[in-house]
Amino acid sequence: MATISDVAKEARVSVATVSRVLNNKESVRKETQQRVYDAIEKLNFQPNLLARNFRRSESRVILIITPNITNPYYAHILTGIGETASSLGYSALIFNTGGSLEKEKEGMEMLKLRRADGAILLASSMESPHLLEYVESHPVVQCSEYDGASGLPRVSIDNHLAAKEVVEYLIDSGHEKIATISSKNTYISTKERLDAYRETMKDHGLKVPRSYIAHGDPDYSFKSGKKAAMKLLSLKERPTAIFCISDTLALGTISAAMEMGIKVPEELTVTGFDDVDDTTMFHPYITTVKQPCYDLGMRAMKLLFDRMMKKEISDKKVILSHQFVIRESSAPYKP
Amino acid sequence: MATISDVAKEARVSVATVSRVLNNKESVRKETQQRVYDAIEKLNFQPNLLARNFRRSESRVILIITPNITNPYYAHILTGIGETASSLGYSALIFNTGGSLEKEKEGMEMLKLRRADGAILLASSMESPHLLEYVESHPVVQCSEYDGASGLPRVSIDNHLAAKEVVEYLIDSGHEKIATISSKNTYISTKERLDAYRETMKDHGLKVPRSYIAHGDPDYSFKSGKKAAMKLLSLKERPTAIFCISDTLALGTISAAMEMGIKVPEELTVTGFDDVDDTTMFHPYITTVKQPCYDLGMRAMKLLFDRMMKKEISDKKVILSHQFVIRESSAPYKP
Repeated sequence: MATISDVAKEARVSVATVSRVLNNKESVRKETQQRVYDAIEKLNFQPNLLARNFRRSESRVILIITPNITNPYYAHILTGIGETASSLGYSALIFNTGGSLEKEKEGMEMLKLRRADGAILLASSMESPHLLEYVESHPVVQCSEYDGASGLPRVSIDNHLAAKEVVEYLIDSGHEKIATISSKNTYISTKERLDAYRETMKDHGLKVPRSYIAHGDPDYSFKSGKKAAMKLLSLKERPTAIFCISDTLALGTISAAMEMGIKVPEELTVTGFDDVDDTTMFHPYITTVKQPCYDLGMRAMKLLFDRMMKKEISDKKVILSHQFVIRESSAPYKP
Repeated sequence: MATISDVAKEARVSVATVSRVLNNKESVRKETQQRVYDAIEKLNFQPNLLARNFRRSESRVILIITPNITNPYYAHILTGIGETASSLGYSALIFNTGGSLEKEKEGMEMLKLRRADGAILLASSMESPHLLEYVESHPVVQCSEYDGASGLPRVSIDNHLAAKEVVEYLIDSGHEKIATISSKNTYISTKERLDAYRETMKDHGLKVPRSYIAHGDPDYSFKSGKKAAMKLLSLKERPTAIFCISDTLALGTISAAMEMGIKVPEELTVTGFDDVDDTTMFHPYITTVKQPCYDLGMRAMKLLFDRMMKKEISDKKVILSHQFVIRESSAPYKP
C-alpha cells in the first residue's frame, strides 16, 4: 500500500505539501496540486481516514442521490462510485429518493448543512432552476442521466447513437413492423432513445403508427413492461420486433410473449438496453446495449473529486462508449 | 399533515414540551416523553427538517450498513427503513460495505464522528467483540441478520421454524432424497436454515449424505446457485427436491435443471426463501418463504428511534411472522 511519502516522492514535493493538498489548503500552487493529485491516483494512495483530523469543516462524505436503488442497472455504477470514493479517502453514502422531488431536496440540503462535501446525482428529477440553487456553492456531478441546461459536469453514454444502432440492426434484419416500449419518465436517456427510434424509422421510410409507442412505468418495472407488451402483441398489425429501452422492460416483454404463445425470437424479436445481470439468467438471453456501468461510476466520482479539490475541469461532458451485444432474443425477420 | 400543536393536543402537553422531547432534552419525565412519542407515531407527525436548528449535536441522519444493496431481498427492507426514518424526521443513508469488515468499521466510525445518530446493521460481518466497541455509546439495531451474543436489539423472522416448515412440506409431499443449497457465509439465517434442514430430515428418519449439502457464494449469486445445482443434479443418487436458502439460488437451480433437461416440478422440486420479486417473473413461479421485508425495516427503524430517544426497550428480540407460499416449482414426488 502506498504511503504519503510515496506520494510526495512521486510528485516531487515534501510530505507537508501533500498534506496541505489533502487538507485542501489554498496556499499550494495549482500546478503542484495537480502533480499531487496525479500521484495519488497513480499510486492509488488511500489516506488513513481514521487517523485524519476530522475537526475541520470537511465531512469526507459524498452523497449518491438516486431514485431507485433496486434497479439492477445501478448495481455496478454504485460499486464504481463506492470503490473510487474509498480510494480517494471518502465514504460514499446512498440516499434513496424513491423518485420524490421533496426527498431529493432533502438530500441536497445535506450539502448546505455540510453533512457531505459533494453529491453525485443519478437520474435526478430536479430541473435546472432547482438544481442551480444548490450547485453554485456545492460540488455536484451528474451520472448516467443529466439535465444538459444545468451546465454541471456529467458522465454518460451516447444514448441517441446507441438506440440508433439497435433500430438499424432491426431494420437490417428485415424487420419493418418495429414497436418500442419507452417509459413514463422525463430522463434524458428516455427522450434520446425514443427520438433515435423515431428518426431511424423515418430515415428508412418506415412508418411508426401511434399504437407502436408503448410506455412502461417510470421505474421500468417488469410488470409494466409485460403489460405494455401484451397491448402491442394484441394489435391487429402485430409488430415483429420490439425495441425496449431497458432490460427489465425486455424481460417483461419476453414473459408476455411466452404467456401468449409467441416464440422469441422465431416469431418476435426483443431487444433490451443496459445489460443488467438478469439478461443472461434464462433463455433466450437478451440482445441489448451494454453500458460501462462501473466506469460511469468511477468517472463521476473522479469528476466530483476534481470539483471538490477546486481543480479546473476541462471536459464537463464525458461520454463513455457502449457496446451492442447480440444474443438470443433477436433474429432476422421471417415472413 | 399533523402539526406540532396537534401532537401537543393528542399528548395532552404543551407545544414547548413536545419541542423539548423532539430536541431530546432530559428534563421531560419518561412517562410524558412516552405520550409524546405515541402521539407522533399515531399522527404520523413529520417535524420540518429544514426549519429545525441543526447546530446542536444531532445529525438527524441514520446509517444503514449493508453488505450488498443489489440483492433484491434488501429492496423492501430499505424502503421500510427509509419511509419510517422520514416520518420520524431522519434521513436514512445507505453505506454499502461489499461484505468487507474494514468498510463496516469505516461505517461505524461515522457514529463516533457524529456524522450519524444511529445505525441499522443488515447482515453485519462483525462479531460481538468488535461490535461492542461501538454499541456501548451509540444506538445500533440489527435487522434480519444478527449476532445474538451482542445483546443488541434485533428484528427478524424465525428462520429455524420457517425452514422446518419447508422441509416438512417436502417430506409430506413424498420426497426422501432432499438436498439443500446453503451459502458460504456466517449469517445466523444460514446457520438456522441448515440446522433446521438437518434436524427435520433426522426427525423423519431420512438420511443426509454429505454430497447433499451444496453451497452457493456468500452473496447467494444466481451463478453460484446454478453451479451448485449442476453438481447436485449430476449425483448418482440424484435428489428429487432441492431446498435452497435463497430465491436467487433457487432461480439458479431452475436454470441448471432446464439446461440439463430436467423438468421442474415434474422431475425436480425446487424451493426458495425470501420471496423476492423475481420469483414470479418466469414460470415455474417459485415456492418460497415470504418474509415481511417492509415491516422488518419499519420495526428496525422504530427500535432505533427508541434507542436514540433513550426510551426503555421492553422487547429486544422482535420476531415477525413469515408465510410459506406454495407456487409452481414444487410437486408431490412421483416415482
